[in-house]
Amino acid sequence: MTTQDSATVLTSDPHQRLGKPAGGWRAALYAIIFESDTPKGRAFDLALIGAILLSVLVVVLTSVKPIADQYGEWLHAGEWFFTVLFTIEYVARCLCVQRPVLYARSFFGVIDVMSILPAYISLFVPAAHVVSGVRILRLLRIFRILKLTLYIQEYSMLGDALLASRRKIFVFLSVVFLIVFLLGSVMYVVEGPENGYTSIPTAVYWAISTMTTVGFGDLVPKTDIGRTIASFMMLLGWGILAVPTGIISSEITHQRGQRLLSLRVCPGCHSTGHEPEARYCKNCGTALPS
Amino acid sequence: MTTQDSATVLTSDPHQRLGKPAGGWRAALYAIIFESDTPKGRAFDLALIGAILLSVLVVVLTSVKPIADQYGEWLHAGEWFFTVLFTIEYVARCLCVQRPVLYARSFFGVIDVMSILPAYISLFVPAAHVVSGVRILRLLRIFRILKLTLYIQEYSMLGDALLASRRKIFVFLSVVFLIVFLLGSVMYVVEGPENGYTSIPTAVYWAISTMTTVGFGDLVPKTDIGRTIASFMMLLGWGILAVPTGIISSEITHQRGQRLLSLRVCPGCHSTGHEPEARYCKNCGTALPS
Amino acid sequence: MTTQDSATVLTSDPHQRLGKPAGGWRAALYAIIFESDTPKGRAFDLALIGAILLSVLVVVLTSVKPIADQYGEWLHAGEWFFTVLFTIEYVARCLCVQRPVLYARSFFGVIDVMSILPAYISLFVPAAHVVSGVRILRLLRIFRILKLTLYIQEYSMLGDALLASRRKIFVFLSVVFLIVFLLGSVMYVVEGPENGYTSIPTAVYWAISTMTTVGFGDLVPKTDIGRTIASFMMLLGWGILAVPTGIISSEITHQRGQRLLSLRVCPGCHSTGHEPEARYCKNCGTALPS
Amino acid sequence: MTTQDSATVLTSDPHQRLGKPAGGWRAALYAIIFESDTPKGRAFDLALIGAILLSVLVVVLTSVKPIADQYGEWLHAGEWFFTVLFTIEYVARCLCVQRPVLYARSFFGVIDVMSILPAYISLFVPAAHVVSGVRILRLLRIFRILKLTLYIQEYSMLGDALLASRRKIFVFLSVVFLIVFLLGSVMYVVEGPENGYTSIPTAVYWAISTMTTVGFGDLVPKTDIGRTIASFMMLLGWGILAVPTGIISSEITHQRGQRLLSLRVCPGCHSTGHEPEARYCKNCGTALPS
Repeated sequence: MTTQDSATVLTSDPHQRLGKPAGGWRAALYAIIFESDTPKGRAFDLALIGAILLSVLVVVLTSVKPIADQYGEWLHAGEWFFTVLFTIEYVARCLCVQRPVLYARSFFGVIDVMSILPAYISLFVPAAHVVSGVRILRLLRIFRILKLTLYIQEYSMLGDALLASRRKIFVFLSVVFLIVFLLGSVMYVVEGPENGYTSIPTAVYWAISTMTTVGFGDLVPKTDIGRTIASFMMLLGWGILAVPTGIISSEITHQRGQRLLSLRVCPGCHSTGHEPEARYCKNCGTALPS
Repeated sequence: MTTQDSATVLTSDPHQRLGKPAGGWRAALYAIIFESDTPKGRAFDLALIGAILLSVLVVVLTSVKPIADQYGEWLHAGEWFFTVLFTIEYVARCLCVQRPVLYARSFFGVIDVMSILPAYISLFVPAAHVVSGVRILRLLRIFRILKLTLYIQEYSMLGDALLASRRKIFVFLSVVFLIVFLLGSVMYVVEGPENGYTSIPTAVYWAISTMTTVGFGDLVPKTDIGRTIASFMMLLGWGILAVPTGIISSEITHQRGQRLLSLRVCPGCHSTGHEPEARYCKNCGTALPS
Repeated sequence: MTTQDSATVLTSDPHQRLGKPAGGWRAALYAIIFESDTPKGRAFDLALIGAILLSVLVVVLTSVKPIADQYGEWLHAGEWFFTVLFTIEYVARCLCVQRPVLYARSFFGVIDVMSILPAYISLFVPAAHVVSGVRILRLLRIFRILKLTLYIQEYSMLGDALLASRRKIFVFLSVVFLIVFLLGSVMYVVEGPENGYTSIPTAVYWAISTMTTVGFGDLVPKTDIGRTIASFMMLLGWGILAVPTGIISSEITHQRGQRLLSLRVCPGCHSTGHEPEARYCKNCGTALPS
Repeated sequence: MTTQDSATVLTSDPHQRLGKPAGGWRAALYAIIFESDTPKGRAFDLALIGAILLSVLVVVLTSVKPIADQYGEWLHAGEWFFTVLFTIEYVARCLCVQRPVLYARSFFGVIDVMSILPAYISLFVPAAHVVSGVRILRLLRIFRILKLTLYIQEYSMLGDALLASRRKIFVFLSVVFLIVFLLGSVMYVVEGPENGYTSIPTAVYWAISTMTTVGFGDLVPKTDIGRTIASFMMLLGWGILAVPTGIISSEITHQRGQRLLSLRVCPGCHSTGHEPEARYCKNCGTALPS
């Protein structure tokens, strides 16, 4: 999918295929919930973003022990208030589209269910409510609501750059994984459980934290050979870091070039590669089609 | 604002709009304080930079306990000496311009007040004097004083590159924030308070320190699942790091290209920005000089 | 070796030079083991990948103490099962090629021996079995088996980029090594054994971990001078990190450009590599097709 | 200085200006010490590199306590052996050139003195011998000795890239220093001495280790506000890291382009920008001068 294509798809109304009812209260509801050109639709969207932000805040505050101890009642009430609110919204969304199954299986449909399910499950499994944090994904709606088509174009351009580099990235990750596994195993043999490298998975975890230059420091080599290998790994990881950067840099530069040198052809000499603002062919001086 | 434009604005005298008095002692004071072509003006500028550096040094030394214990009296005296000095300078600046309000509300006007206010406030709130460090911002004057117009051009070019990429950067930061929040919440659920992840904000702080490859090591995953997720996060953060680099690399390369293109001028329409290999003006079709 | 050349070498059957027997059971065995176009050959390849993955899993699980304590018998049996299996496979491979010595000395031949030797050696030296992790390298076969010629092209392109930059990288590493050794020695003098910098090698290990921005934190400067030098080193390492990235970015962009240029063929001399805007062949002067 | 110029300077004999004696034993000594085309000169160079490496090894081993305790006598003897050897070499170098003062003040002349001085000073100040590590800089001779002119070209190209970006880098470092100082001061105020941020210099050291993504972990924020500011700093430092990379990437790409598009002009159409391997003008088909 090219940048233009994906941008077009994203900027056109993605809800059209869900089917807008022909009339009645369902059509009115559809206009409020799914569209944002009417004052009511705009108000609904803003209220929805506010509700999502507040409900995420409730989840965050519930996790902070001092606050949960003091305002536990209120937070619990807030959690259920937003759960019921989002449940009503979900039912309304299902009711007012022609093809509710299509909505339920769409990206946002799944996210919407995942935002309310944890609370209901927590009635049986109390620990489940912590998963509610996933509802922050609902904020992705904000891009559509605010009609940030240009932002979406940027999104899709980055996505295209990554997509175009996916084979390079796969190859790169395979090599990184092999290196990390081999060097991790070596460190497990060299340092051993007495220095904290208790198993190969632990040593691989350490190798990843070293080669990505994170370096937590919970595990550190203590033997001389271990430190020599670690030094080598750090330099290697440092150099390897340049590879994905180079891949993506080159890809973004290429994407930009592709877009700029658009597909205009000179009617005089049939040359291409004209800048977007050029009005005459740079080779033969013929006027270019706008 | 293009590079040329912003450079022009910065290299022309930014104080013109403050209004230079027509004559008298105010005009003489203006020439000393705001201009730097006369010997007196140059001496004033050098003295000012020296005073700023010394006053920052006083703030820094005051924070070092052994030094503060021994030379506390001297540092206190120095602090007040510079405060009074900067107060006199500030009053002088206000007096000698035609529009003092415009100066007081300008960037440097605000910084100048912020450099002296903390000392006066510390008469009532003793702790306030630590904020004096903000006066280091006064050093930004150095670029204007030393007439480093070329440096300022570089500044504005970097600024343009960032500005031109602002939407890409916003999109990028949104995605990073969503990822960090989600993975932080997951780690809070997986590791839990017993391993130090006491709340979602704490876990998000850890997630940021991991994905930016800082890796303080004050919080580290201890469970097997937690370490697996952390390994994934480190690799992900490592790869994501390539994105802003790619964006800015591509932007700087583009800016440089733009500048190189602007050397040739069309004899027909006086337009610039022609590619090196173009033989005819892309705007009016006139043959370009080789 | 150019990208095209190395890709051609890798995508053509690399086993041809090993010599396929003319007929009989050896030719049949060859078809199963070395080729993957027949159903049997494909089944063998899939079984081999599965066996490699399982045998690596056995090595990993053996290193995890709780699991090894509980299922030690099973893991030990599994280790020997795969060792015998891979031994049979190795013998079969040697038997069915015309030039077994060539196979034994090839990259995969060496890896295959290294996958089974540790287990046999562990009969005499019990600790040797930990080296079995090296058999993960056998997974490199997967690229050939799955006929991922495009992936191999990517591999060779990355390899070419690194190869083309090898002198720049050598120069860069020399300079980095000199800087790290000098600054490490300075820190050894400044901080000394009482702050953990017990020897110059240790200090160099710390210098590498600092300049690569890994920063384990097992050694940290404690004196004021040490912290100042460390601050300088961090900024320097941060800046130096940009150099390999720049080298590889530039190299990948160049490689990509080379590939794009090679699409048009001159009708006069059949040469490739013409720039997109070229109108005449740069080798023989014939007009190029647009 | 362009790449071509600096490469020429470095590959031509840099010792010419020191003045080769006309004849006699001094000329013979000069040929051995400063030149490397004769068998004797080559043997001397190899012996010198060996001696430098061994003398550095002695310094390193002396710093490792267990080894120094056991072989202290031998290492001490080795240290003096190499010191006397290098002293003799230094005197010989001074004797056999026409202008010894010019040699003594050259880069290598200074390094040569610094390699032997610490040992002599340690007769009076025992601790001085640790500075001997500086003699590793003598290894820089290796590039000249091995006639690695191509490597030197790479060196000078990297140097040119850095030189060409020096203003951008200065501006960048100024901004980084201002940010680090301001945020460090803020953290000193927020966290305070009770959380380890004992002074502004310490807080600035921490700010640098955070923004360069080193993250030692010896100092970590403990308050909620401190962690929030630290999170912001990590993201900021992560993004800022992209700037020097972009600057140098763009510079290297530009240098490469400059070199490739050499200064050949087509005699037919006076166009430039021809690839090094082009033999005919890509615009008009005229044969290009080789």
